[in-house]
Formats: sequence, C-alpha cells, structure tokens
Amino acid sequence: MKPLYRERLKRLRSSMAGKKLGAFVVTDLKNIRYLTGFTGSSAYAIVSSDKAFFLTDPRYTAQSREEVKGFRVKIFKKALDTVAEILGGIKAAAVGFESGSVSFDNYSKLAKALKGKAKLKASAGLVSALRSVKDQFEIEKITEAAKLLDKGFIHALKVVKPGAIEREAAFSIETFWKKRGAEGLAFDTIIASGERGALPHGKASEKRIKKGELVVIDMGALLNGYNSDETRTFVTGRPTAKQKEVYQVVRDAQAAAIESIRPGVKASAVDLAARSVIGKAGYGKYFGHGTGHGVGLDIHESPGLGPTSIDVLEEGMVITVEPGIYIPGWGGVRIEDMALVTKNGAKLLTSTNRDLVIL
Amino acid sequence: MKPLYRERLKRLRSSMAGKKLGAFVVTDLKNIRYLTGFTGSSAYAIVSSDKAFFLTDPRYTAQSREEVKGFRVKIFKKALDTVAEILGGIKAAAVGFESGSVSFDNYSKLAKALKGKAKLKASAGLVSALRSVKDQFEIEKITEAAKLLDKGFIHALKVVKPGAIEREAAFSIETFWKKRGAEGLAFDTIIASGERGALPHGKASEKRIKKGELVVIDMGALLNGYNSDETRTFVTGRPTAKQKEVYQVVRDAQAAAIESIRPGVKASAVDLAARSVIGKAGYGKYFGHGTGHGVGLDIHESPGLGPTSIDVLEEGMVITVEPGIYIPGWGGVRIEDMALVTKNGAKLLTSTNRDLVIL
Repeated sequence: MKPLYRERLKRLRSSMAGKKLGAFVVTDLKNIRYLTGFTGSSAYAIVSSDKAFFLTDPRYTAQSREEVKGFRVKIFKKALDTVAEILGGIKAAAVGFESGSVSFDNYSKLAKALKGKAKLKASAGLVSALRSVKDQFEIEKITEAAKLLDKGFIHALKVVKPGAIEREAAFSIETFWKKRGAEGLAFDTIIASGERGALPHGKASEKRIKKGELVVIDMGALLNGYNSDETRTFVTGRPTAKQKEVYQVVRDAQAAAIESIRPGVKASAVDLAARSVIGKAGYGKYFGHGTGHGVGLDIHESPGLGPTSIDVLEEGMVITVEPGIYIPGWGGVRIEDMALVTKNGAKLLTSTNRDLVIL
Repeated sequence: MKPLYRERLKRLRSSMAGKKLGAFVVTDLKNIRYLTGFTGSSAYAIVSSDKAFFLTDPRYTAQSREEVKGFRVKIFKKALDTVAEILGGIKAAAVGFESGSVSFDNYSKLAKALKGKAKLKASAGLVSALRSVKDQFEIEKITEAAKLLDKGFIHALKVVKPGAIEREAAFSIETFWKKRGAEGLAFDTIIASGERGALPHGKASEKRIKKGELVVIDMGALLNGYNSDETRTFVTGRPTAKQKEVYQVVRDAQAAAIESIRPGVKASAVDLAARSVIGKAGYGKYFGHGTGHGVGLDIHESPGLGPTSIDVLEEGMVITVEPGIYIPGWGGVRIEDMALVTKNGAKLLTSTNRDLVIL
C-alpha cells in the first residue's frame, strides 16, 4: 500500500476553502513529508486551489525528483524570494502560513518579499488536524513500528535487571531495534528506577538498578518515518504492598481510559476517566501530566488528551493512553499503550503484558 | 574546569547594553544551556541589567534546581504569562527576543500578554554571537569530542570496505562511540560510496560498497553536549588517475583555507582561499556549498564560512574547513577538519590522516 498524496492534498484544499485561504505555505518538514513524500531537511510547499509547488535547495535536486509526488518541483537559491514569486503568480487574497512553527524573522522576511501582494494569515494547525486522522497506509506503518517496539520490551526483560546500569540497558534496546531496521529512537529512552521513577521524564542515567525497585521504561522506535510509544513499569524482586497497590491503581486508570475511547468522545473525557480512578484512590496530586497524545510522523502530535483539551476523538486517530503516579522520594508507575480509534472503540496497537512483571 | 556562567552572563549584558535592550528573553534551548547550564527541554530565561530569571515547567523542578547556576528559578504553569509578568516587573522600555527561532504565534501571544508594557525588539543572533567565541571550558569539551571522533575513523577503517553496506558500517561506528560515552551522533552519519559521493548529504544507505570506489565519510560524535565534525574520503582499491587528481585538488584547497585562518580575517576570505584552488583546477562548478561553519553546542552555528558571509574570525572560534568536489555520475571527495582559531593561526582539533587512504 502506498501513501495517498492526492487524497491528502484534497483534504488540505478543503480545509483551506473552509478558512477562505487562496493559498497556503507549508514550512513544517513533517507536514511537507505528509503532503509530498519528501524526507530531506530543506523544503517549502505552496498549495492553491489548483496548483501545488514543492521548493527545495540544489542539494536536494535528485532526491526531490525521486520522492516528491503530485507537486511541481522548483529549486531555489533564496527560499523566501521564490516563495514570494510563486505567491505573486497565484494572486490569492489571503495566504495561510504555519504560524506555530515559522519564526518571527521568516514571517517578517516573507511579508516584506510579498510587498503587499497578498495578506498573510496565521493558520497554525491546519495540516496537523489532517494528520491527526490516519489513513490506511499510516495505520499500517504505525502498527509495524508498534510491533517492533513490543519486541524491544521482550529484549528489555533480558537487560533490565538488578545490577544493570540504566543507560547501558537503554543502549542495548536501541541497538536491538536498529539491527531490525529502525531509523532511530522515537525519543530518548526513559529508564527510571527506584526514586528516579518519580521523574516523569527520567531519561536513562548512570544509575545502577537495585533489588526491590520499580523501574519505569518509556520508549519508542522510529520505523519508516513513523513513531511508536509505550511504557511499562517492572519491579525487581517481590513487590511491596504499596508497590502493588499503586500499580493496580494505574492499571485500573488506564483500563477505564481505554474503555472510554470511541469516535465522538471528547479527548478530555478520556483524560477524566483515568484521572477519576487515580483521584478516588487518593493519588490525584501525584498525576501531573495529561493522559495521552497523538502519535504519527511526530512523537507528540494532535490530538492532546489533557484536562483542558478541546479535541474530539475521530475514527482513525492513533493516541497513547498513559496515566501515571509519581511520588517524590518513593518512585513512580506509568503504563502506556497506543490505541487506534475505531468505530467500535479502542484497538490497542501495543501488546506487551500489562500485569506487574517481576524481573 | 567548569563553565563560567557568570562571565557568559556579563558578556550578554554588555551586548544588550550595546543594543539598548533593558531586558532579553532567551528561548533557544541551546542558548539557555549555554547561559544557565540547564539541559532539559522546556525553559525560558529572562535577563536584565541586574536580574536573571530561569523559567521551566513542573516536570523539571528537581532538575533545574540541580543544574541552573546564577539564575533565579521560577516554575510556570503558563509559560508566556509568567514571562510577561516578570517583564512587567523589570519595566524595560525595549525587550529583545530571539526572533530567529521564536514562532510567530509565540511572538503574538507574548506581545498580547505584555499589554503594551514593553516594546518587543527582534534581536536574533545576540547569544549565538557570544557562543561563536568559545571559552576554555568549551574548547576542552570540543577537543574531547573531536578526539573521540578521530577514534571513530580508526574504527571506520575496519568496517568500511568493499562488500560492506553503508548503513551497517555507520551503525557500527555509532555503537563504537556510544560505548565510549557519546550521547549520540552530531548528525546522521554520511557514508556515500561511488556515485553517491556526488550527493553532499548522502546519508549512509542500503548500498553495498564496491571495489574501486571513493567513499566519503562525514560524521561526528556528540559528547557532553558538544558536537564534532570531520570528513575523510577513502578509496577501495588502487585509485584511478582521476580519483587521485580530484583528491589532491581538494586536499590543496583545504590546506590553503587552513593556512589563511587567523584572527581578523574575513570568513569569506577563508572560503575564497579554498574556492580559488578548486576553481583554478577547473572544478569550480562542482563545489556548491560553503567552506565551513562554527561547531559547538549546535553542529552548525556561527560563524558561517561561505562566499557571502559577513563574519570575521576571532580568537577562540571553532570552525570546520571542508571543501569538496562533487561530480554527478562519478562521485565526490570532501576533506574536513575542525580548527580552533588561535592568535598564531589554525590549531587543528581533528587529526585523522589526510593522505588518500586505500581500504
């Protein structure tokens, strides 16, 4: 199966029409990859109701001709001058731009180069809204990345153990993935053992894992451009009553959140489902982050599943569900899976055992 | 030796005074690391003539108290509101911001939150100008990264050979570095053999290296936050007359550029020194990029060594010198070293053999 670039462009044009934009300038490289197929590091795309241009610098002449589908390729010397020239030819009254990522200086330069020929309109989130709903090609690629991730957890069971150093275990898992075709990590692997588990972003450190500790492992593989993201919390040795209790609360919270997922449900309601379970158990103040986020070409993308999110779930979204409890001086527990929103509810894409595993 | 944060802050305040800025908002994370020591992924810094604030979110409370030196730490809920509040207290007429990296949306939000209490002034490049001249701590760290990089080339001699797959060789070198403490790669390793050598950014691919090919290897290790960057071109088997000739032209071009380096010299003059040698040999149209760039916390930073650069070399700058010749359908040669600008000229920080090595 191949990416349906034509379909993606059609959806963008429909969004543009809804915002009364005669043209749209794409600058975010992941958005450009999504729309054109280009994987390099220097590019712009310009879309109007009937034209589509792809711009890159001379280093990428050969690569762009090979990768870019359905866009007219132009090679620039000075990017913003070429952008302004093309926009001048399109003669759109309002030109949308990605105001969430374009720097103030580039905005100013583009406005100047346009010499009043078109009005720039801050239009952040247009492509990311399209990207939040995955097409079949993407679901296939994300599922492959999630399966490779799951295998990494089987490998983790071998290298995460009392006596091991967090950073060395993380590197062993990274090597395992890369040997199996991963381009890299979705993000720096988190292995946070003992008290470090109370840090939600406790990157693997030089700490040695000890007996009797909870070990939070949050990791993901990047495969064919798509990210994956999963967390498990293991225990080294027989768990204490409190370790078991906190683990069970997080597990119940995750189950409640997963249960609540279906098209039309507010993202904030999924967060609330998890948050209520943790709150009722008396650990509310130890759950400081949102319940999840979209995953795709970016590791964090739309929708957001926090208490103040205004997103609504749609069929085809891929989201994480990752409640946690973090107790300073004691440690932490987080359990995270990736879920595809289907018309029948959540379909989990990650499948590592969710019971408390003793290492 | 420790980083001299106080000295760095003093230099920033002197730059601010020169631009008549009563306050400066730092948003680039590498600039924040340079000024404060913080290595996390969410932060702002605000500097006035007599105050210095560091802002982060609750995830980084513990880490910021450990890492941040000489700044008053504040934990925010909504970053830009806290920034506006602090700026309101400083009562500066003009507030500089990093317009080269702040998004248009964040600029707009900050301007709105300020409610006219201060005038925002686009001030890109203020900290990067400071960073272009390295202090003793940085020179020490960059030298360590360069030495680890050199060792990677010794390893490369073992794994880059006829029959090897580019990507597997690159991964073997990456593993070699990581086992010796590197946090990661400075950038995706380039191993471009045969015709692929004509791509200046030919990332290691699935191509198998054949006999009789030139192989361009451009790579760097990231060690203790500092980058390194070096290129060598090897040949697999006895070189042809043309391979030898092109190699020698690039080597002479690099030697001429290195020879021209000293404080007070225009960066464009170093570029010209290399470019003239290549031009005179008749390969001018095959050298499409600049001769080098600064290296430090970022892999590409100030100064730039291209034909249109307005930078002037200063003692303490660390730059790359990397001319190349790229002939479509034939292949390429690039030779790159890192040089510290000293009062007596260039001191090379990388030391791999510059003769044409036969693999």
